Amino acid sequence: MLAPVSQDEPLLLREDRAGVARLTLNRPAARNALSVALMAELADVLDEIADDAAVKVVVIAASGPAFCAGHDLKEVRADSSRAAMEALFRQCSDLMLQVTRLPKPVIAEVHAMATAAGCQLVATCDLAVAADTARFATPGVNIGLFCSTPMVALTRNIGAKPAMAMLLTGEPIDAATALGLGLVNRVVPAAGLRAAVDGLADTIASKSPLVLAIGKEAFHRQRDMPLADAYAYASDVMTKNMMAADAAEGIDAFVTRRTPAWKGC
Amino acid sequence: MLAPVSQDEPLLLREDRAGVARLTLNRPAARNALSVALMAELADVLDEIADDAAVKVVVIAASGPAFCAGHDLKEVRADSSRAAMEALFRQCSDLMLQVTRLPKPVIAEVHAMATAAGCQLVATCDLAVAADTARFATPGVNIGLFCSTPMVALTRNIGAKPAMAMLLTGEPIDAATALGLGLVNRVVPAAGLRAAVDGLADTIASKSPLVLAIGKEAFHRQRDMPLADAYAYASDVMTKNMMAADAAEGIDAFVTRRTPAWKGC
Amino acid sequence: MLAPVSQDEPLLLREDRAGVARLTLNRPAARNALSVALMAELADVLDEIADDAAVKVVVIAASGPAFCAGHDLKEVRADSSRAAMEALFRQCSDLMLQVTRLPKPVIAEVHAMATAAGCQLVATCDLAVAADTARFATPGVNIGLFCSTPMVALTRNIGAKPAMAMLLTGEPIDAATALGLGLVNRVVPAAGLRAAVDGLADTIASKSPLVLAIGKEAFHRQRDMPLADAYAYASDVMTKNMMAADAAEGIDAFVTRRTPAWKGC
Repeated sequence: MLAPVSQDEPLLLREDRAGVARLTLNRPAARNALSVALMAELADVLDEIADDAAVKVVVIAASGPAFCAGHDLKEVRADSSRAAMEALFRQCSDLMLQVTRLPKPVIAEVHAMATAAGCQLVATCDLAVAADTARFATPGVNIGLFCSTPMVALTRNIGAKPAMAMLLTGEPIDAATALGLGLVNRVVPAAGLRAAVDGLADTIASKSPLVLAIGKEAFHRQRDMPLADAYAYASDVMTKNMMAADAAEGIDAFVTRRTPAWKGC
Repeated sequence: MLAPVSQDEPLLLREDRAGVARLTLNRPAARNALSVALMAELADVLDEIADDAAVKVVVIAASGPAFCAGHDLKEVRADSSRAAMEALFRQCSDLMLQVTRLPKPVIAEVHAMATAAGCQLVATCDLAVAADTARFATPGVNIGLFCSTPMVALTRNIGAKPAMAMLLTGEPIDAATALGLGLVNRVVPAAGLRAAVDGLADTIASKSPLVLAIGKEAFHRQRDMPLADAYAYASDVMTKNMMAADAAEGIDAFVTRRTPAWKGC
Repeated sequence: MLAPVSQDEPLLLREDRAGVARLTLNRPAARNALSVALMAELADVLDEIADDAAVKVVVIAASGPAFCAGHDLKEVRADSSRAAMEALFRQCSDLMLQVTRLPKPVIAEVHAMATAAGCQLVATCDLAVAADTARFATPGVNIGLFCSTPMVALTRNIGAKPAMAMLLTGEPIDAATALGLGLVNRVVPAAGLRAAVDGLADTIASKSPLVLAIGKEAFHRQRDMPLADAYAYASDVMTKNMMAADAAEGIDAFVTRRTPAWKGC
């Protein structure tokens, strides 16, 4: 069922159905640590998906006992030269920005512990659904490496005080706490996680992919602007959106009480 | 009791009492959709109120089965030329900025569904009290027109993940959820909504209008600044505030345990 | 046990143990109002602590019936000239920025009411633990002096709507509400406050002080940046952190399952 994206190293599985591309981090023995190779595969697949009109929504899930343990420390120890570290953190930051800039919504399906860059990945996804067995931590401080890049995503999801607590103590929070803080959108029993994510993905996949792309880009761009600039920018986005065929189709369908037939343009 | 602000089109009702101007969106059959005419009336009334020393607090309420359904789609369909759309979204954004810049606190009284630009209006008001019958949605994605301008206000009220969920799914949230997310300040039984809003408005109307104006402006300006700049700016605001007669009066009244008599200067 | 930091005026007590410097605001009769002298002592002590390798974590507590009542209004009334006010608000803002820039985590231990600049101090600390008897207010509006500088810290901790409610009404919130809003990290019964803070401080004091300093600085700097800039900056911070001896030590200890021995470099 699940197809490895590379024959040699099934680090990442991809399964497509009805507009939803489901990617599964598949290094269970390494708790899905984001090795250079796994990040490269993820980046490649996301590049493909960006141009794949059949994909409307992306799910990032994971196999094994953890969702994602962050960077691969064995790899880091093997070469911790400045050049290697610069390359590593640039690659990881570029990957996170790629998720943010991907013109399709990305949902994290978190069944278990998400740590450091794994927690960052959850924070970076547009939406996240967690099993009640999930936990979240930024424990870099425990190993002498503060979670500075995970913090970028974390502080854009949750408040300053709880973010600082996670970062300074390194202690995990449970799924219910993550929900209360806004790090995830929903918590469900573990047995219902896949169904909950599928339902959410299907809902979003029923929208116009053009409109999702317009909205996701605008979300991130306006967030970094002062209020008046954000309004000038967003007003312009609305006008451009209105000029699209899908806006005419959607409004007509709404007013005449029928289901819209999106054209994606 | 309620006076239409225009004889021809009672799109907006205004009722003043004891320092509180209560504006009621009055297109119940159109679910108070923000037509060009309604937005123009609202802008005119807010302009009047800005210079009306008798008004210390503004309440925005609505009549009929909905609080506000957002833009008037029938109007949009009648002329969806680029020029009309540019003018529409600019008008709406200007109206929202006008609420933000009005030198008096504005309270949304939300008795029912607030959708798209209607949800934006709630997010834009300084405070919001909701009935337990209220709901909130940014469902533009369902009609091919992403709620990009409502998003500007929404993301300055609630966290990234729940905002994205509202924007990408178009699904409504109930009043209790809105309270938990910070979109409204308080939820009360529908029968007690008016009294709760009146009480809140009275509390704020008892303050110095000058000081409310100073504080509201500073709130929005410092939010868009880096921390050190915000402190330099806010320290300057504090000094100017201290030079006002109302600060001397307020501090003297506090220390001598009497009720202050504000002069508004 | 508690040593006054100045012989003449025990405005501020300091007690050090095992890497934790505990500072106690000690003007109980004045509800620990931040007089010019108290702020100066606090600034001096924080300056000393910044360079004191024995101190890894700072706790700010308070004695008497209040945590901190904000500015000293009797002092303000004695000289409310523009020059005095400019100096006062600059001194207070500089103190808050000093807490933010101190290269060691600062925990507020809030046993009772924290008002105005006292509430700002809680918001400014990296972490805060409150007794269930604590309360928080920005009531400047009641005395004709809007809490504009407290607002800078408050709005960087809690959402816009609840912040506006506190600022416009001046009404206090209780500890449980403060927890829900993200103004404090934890609420405990009053009898357990000291133990809870000590436990939290001990946990953080067990980390590498170098790594805590790197992380705290990065936290505040990246928050004011657009997303892509924040990632470029944080990636650079991660690389520099990796070049430190404590990162090598921490990762080696983790992989070999032993307790790290931090060198602070």
